[in-house]
Amino acid sequence: MWRATILTLYPEMFPGPLGISLAGKALANGLWSLEAKQIRDHATDKHGTVDDTPAGGGPGMVMKADVLARALDAIPADNRPRLIMSARGQPLRQGRVRELAAGDGAVVLCGRFEGVDERLIEARGLEEVCLGDFVLSGGEMAALTLLDACVRLIPGVMGKEASGVEESFSDGLLEYPQYTRPAVFEGRPIPEILTSGDHAKVAAWRRAEAERLTRERRPDLWAAYLARKSPKTGPKP
Amino acid sequence: MWRATILTLYPEMFPGPLGISLAGKALANGLWSLEAKQIRDHATDKHGTVDDTPAGGGPGMVMKADVLARALDAIPADNRPRLIMSARGQPLRQGRVRELAAGDGAVVLCGRFEGVDERLIEARGLEEVCLGDFVLSGGEMAALTLLDACVRLIPGVMGKEASGVEESFSDGLLEYPQYTRPAVFEGRPIPEILTSGDHAKVAAWRRAEAERLTRERRPDLWAAYLARKSPKTGPKP
Repeated sequence: MWRATILTLYPEMFPGPLGISLAGKALANGLWSLEAKQIRDHATDKHGTVDDTPAGGGPGMVMKADVLARALDAIPADNRPRLIMSARGQPLRQGRVRELAAGDGAVVLCGRFEGVDERLIEARGLEEVCLGDFVLSGGEMAALTLLDACVRLIPGVMGKEASGVEESFSDGLLEYPQYTRPAVFEGRPIPEILTSGDHAKVAAWRRAEAERLTRERRPDLWAAYLARKSPKTGPKP
Repeated sequence: MWRATILTLYPEMFPGPLGISLAGKALANGLWSLEAKQIRDHATDKHGTVDDTPAGGGPGMVMKADVLARALDAIPADNRPRLIMSARGQPLRQGRVRELAAGDGAVVLCGRFEGVDERLIEARGLEEVCLGDFVLSGGEMAALTLLDACVRLIPGVMGKEASGVEESFSDGLLEYPQYTRPAVFEGRPIPEILTSGDHAKVAAWRRAEAERLTRERRPDLWAAYLARKSPKTGPKP
């Protein structure tokens, strides 16, 4: 079973939205497990201190290396990767999500963005992961999002019919536009080709639309897509 | 008051983690408001149908333009931006978060990633936003994350002491490493300069570390940072 262990100051945030819908049903059905551990239980003083002022001064508080190390070390060693959600980490990509989902699970430390003592990250070799170039109030929401992305890829979680979605993402293109009934909405008809019944033409149209959208909206993804293709057979930029 | 209105098939996911800690206290104190509306209430048939099969075939279901339009149009017009969380959207950046937080709030439609009828997005001029290049089980987790990023910037939500954090992000660099007591952790001392009491040297060290980390970890951010600086006075790559 895919196992998630979260280290947090707010264990009551879990499973939260992951207890509902797709991830929630999979959790109830034992396709994955989730435990949220309270970091404060590993404080070394009777006040339950988990943070202290930054060395060198400055605003906010820094989470203490010694307390976090005790919290991490209390989790029995296994081959699950140990991550920390941090605005300084590598941006999460679907490729890493697939790797994580194919493994045994993940141990995720939720930092506060004022900071975690750098020595803890170094000493325990934590993988720093961020969602994107924005700041959150803590690592918990990022951890929930990471788990949502992973859990849907665990075998058996998604119905067969939805499983094509990540295929279309894995080729590095944005998804093509989708349409459904009614045939005309506020004067806008569904593109004729989609109702033609010609499967080859539909597939070609969708491919062209996915390429167009990626080129227009995400030049970064488009450049990477072109770079992976042979210059002679690939589409022109 | 900053007002968030969410359109979703899972209103029970809200406020979820946003009801706890920083965002939760601010919600309880009336610094922002949150309403989660059930899209299904706007279905046009007695079965509560909200989706249908994709025109042109393929896996999954597509959310119906007519139902979503009714749900959106039931929200009284105001000057809040109307967003849809979608893997095809523009990646969220802290600059957009700041703009949103400075406004009156946001209306956020949570799509399913199998797709929303494209004509709805066009007809209502929705702003498509994604968190990053990964796929979620639905737009709800993305909406929660977006709100978390916005709410912490609403005046009065963060204490004065934490308010410096986004300043350090806004200059386009990753944050410098943080340290706190103990002075030595598992043989690793706090960098000497941080305990020197020399504020100018501390500031210079932090700046250099922020630049080093950004250069090493995020060549994309580093290139953008250099481009904003004068070539004569900027740091060398």
